[in-house]
Amino acid sequence: MSQQPRVNGGRLWDSLMEMAQIGAIPKGGVCRLALSEEDRIGRDLFVQWATDAGCSIRVDAMGNIFARRAGRNNDLAPVITGSHGDSQPTGGKFDGIYGVLAGIEVMRALNDHDIQTERPLEVVNWTNEEGSRFAPAMIASGVYAGVFDLEYGLSRTDAKGITIGQALEQIGYAGSEPMGGRELHAAFELHIEQGPILEAENITIGVVSGAQGQRWYEVELTGRTAHAGTTPMNHRLDALLGFARVVEAVHSLGLEQGAEGRATVGMANVFPNSRNVVPGRVFFSVEFRHPDEAVLVGLDMELREQVAMIADEIGLTWRVEQIFQYAPIAFDSDCIQRVSEAASALGYSQRPIISGAGHDACYLNRVAPTSMIFVPCVDGLSHNEAEHIHPHWAEAGANVLLLAMLAKASEV
Amino acid sequence: MSQQPRVNGGRLWDSLMEMAQIGAIPKGGVCRLALSEEDRIGRDLFVQWATDAGCSIRVDAMGNIFARRAGRNNDLAPVITGSHGDSQPTGGKFDGIYGVLAGIEVMRALNDHDIQTERPLEVVNWTNEEGSRFAPAMIASGVYAGVFDLEYGLSRTDAKGITIGQALEQIGYAGSEPMGGRELHAAFELHIEQGPILEAENITIGVVSGAQGQRWYEVELTGRTAHAGTTPMNHRLDALLGFARVVEAVHSLGLEQGAEGRATVGMANVFPNSRNVVPGRVFFSVEFRHPDEAVLVGLDMELREQVAMIADEIGLTWRVEQIFQYAPIAFDSDCIQRVSEAASALGYSQRPIISGAGHDACYLNRVAPTSMIFVPCVDGLSHNEAEHIHPHWAEAGANVLLLAMLAKASEV
Repeated sequence: MSQQPRVNGGRLWDSLMEMAQIGAIPKGGVCRLALSEEDRIGRDLFVQWATDAGCSIRVDAMGNIFARRAGRNNDLAPVITGSHGDSQPTGGKFDGIYGVLAGIEVMRALNDHDIQTERPLEVVNWTNEEGSRFAPAMIASGVYAGVFDLEYGLSRTDAKGITIGQALEQIGYAGSEPMGGRELHAAFELHIEQGPILEAENITIGVVSGAQGQRWYEVELTGRTAHAGTTPMNHRLDALLGFARVVEAVHSLGLEQGAEGRATVGMANVFPNSRNVVPGRVFFSVEFRHPDEAVLVGLDMELREQVAMIADEIGLTWRVEQIFQYAPIAFDSDCIQRVSEAASALGYSQRPIISGAGHDACYLNRVAPTSMIFVPCVDGLSHNEAEHIHPHWAEAGANVLLLAMLAKASEV
Repeated sequence: MSQQPRVNGGRLWDSLMEMAQIGAIPKGGVCRLALSEEDRIGRDLFVQWATDAGCSIRVDAMGNIFARRAGRNNDLAPVITGSHGDSQPTGGKFDGIYGVLAGIEVMRALNDHDIQTERPLEVVNWTNEEGSRFAPAMIASGVYAGVFDLEYGLSRTDAKGITIGQALEQIGYAGSEPMGGRELHAAFELHIEQGPILEAENITIGVVSGAQGQRWYEVELTGRTAHAGTTPMNHRLDALLGFARVVEAVHSLGLEQGAEGRATVGMANVFPNSRNVVPGRVFFSVEFRHPDEAVLVGLDMELREQVAMIADEIGLTWRVEQIFQYAPIAFDSDCIQRVSEAASALGYSQRPIISGAGHDACYLNRVAPTSMIFVPCVDGLSHNEAEHIHPHWAEAGANVLLLAMLAKASEV
């Protein structure tokens, strides 16, 4: 291509704002839970916009919607992009849907420039990425990628006992398209960073090279509940003191792993949780994230050793149980390269970045050459009504997506 | 008295076990909440036993029941003993009621030995010491001692909105006797230690010289809620990390005050308390206890300084609010002496001890020369269905009470 096309940033922003009215909530965010009536209206709008842009629509058995723009050679595997249209209960206007609507904008921009690609292009709107209404998160891209089987996916229930299968029927998005099983030439997912790094470093494009592996634990320390007034300090088996020391140790373990290390205690329940009772038990979560599996293996050992040491010192019993494990993801080096080249061609500042969160792209990476593009979000805020991105960030990310898709779509 | 009388330990134990059937719960404890139907039945049994022992009964406006055994000179101020008949929701068989029934046993033993005292003796069953059904604790002895006024006391409500005044009417214990305002020559309260010290040191009698002062605080640390995967360690304002450091600091402050120091974080609520979210806020309690008010003043300053320092280091905002203060109690030196002499005369091992908990005697001490007698309890357990004392401890405490009361009752 001699002349690089560009997206229409104003049109993209208008679409984002129009979509944000569906499920809008008072503090500026959206509540568009997966397969809710709001999600249905949002899906219908996505389908309308994609159809208006000349795309054909297919829906699979998990309700994933694929909007396809024909290429010159439609026997070739497509280049796909997209993200999810569902939100957290008090979510923002950009998490997920930005990547979906940027895909639509890519289609529109190609129409504006009258560009026909060699390979077909697709935009996908994945079902239930957030995991807010139905657990686990990323269930539908997971089924697509063969991580979960279809029966498992359709039978997940919400808090009222409604299954994904039933909810899909209710809103008319139980499709007939086979689940996955076809070749994809490349996949890109454009998403807000959901963290503070890009904004803090004044970088426009995050070239996502992979996603962190995760280890989630449940830890329980048990001592002896005792009267706070009558029990001398040296007679106590204070589970909360042990907990405090584990929190400090987990924090240190996170710091020791450098810039990519994440170590978090997010949940803690104290028993009996009474002001004048020395706590006899604390139940809490620990999670580690790191892009290197070997580091996670080391952290696993360190956690157990330190909990044991801390517990022994006080006289507590302890239990550490790993409840969830997610291997680090390395995205496709060629896709990563295409994103970096697109950002360079466009003159945007860029840096490599590791995704700290899970995304549909992490599962898709198992069945297609995949990578992601991040744009900054203000204060790193996400899963929050105040989530915000600047329009020029939104435009920049979509331009990178456009050029990266074009590059892959021209490969024969 | 040339020949020292003794209580009948078997009879006392039988009374304890009979009373423990009222409100008995599955794991061996009792639920006899203040002014409940179970409490009424227990009160009726107390009145019956006291009447059988030749006592006259008076009930005041807070439902405190006074059983009086006449002396030779009934114009003289009485010597009083007693404790409370109410229990925690899953309380033990001895907390409170032991001191009440030991008072009855003193009356019975004096009858056995045909002893007439110079001064009249009384056994009191105080209303709502535990504070489980109606807050605050020790409300009725507090009204008796003029700490609270009667209107305040009668208007305290339970979780269903029923006032103490209404509950007293319902169970027929809204008495007509004036609240306090009369001279008491001396007061003794016999109670289980509710701590581990006496048992650990193999001591039978705790000669209670006073009660610890208390300072209760609410502390809040506020940082910033953040995504555990996307937020680097050095971008976090982790309220839980600050909390962990305060817990360690509070523990150290307790240790530094020596054997009488108590420093406890008993309650902590983490927000949003989600496994993959860096906690943005922790709300928790701190309490200090010490027999020396100057030490408590120092601890107050130390707490504020350390919370401020820890919060500043992480970048948190903080709030420390003292919500409750209770000055140290020094019991009457002559009453203390009488208890010690009684234990010596009976050949029981003894040691001075400070009460870590609040008791009706702490309020009574404001209007009468007062002291307490402690006996050990197994493993220091109390406010627990497994609370237990050995029969020989129960007997020993009652014998000390008997001799201490006799000594004071003979003073003219």
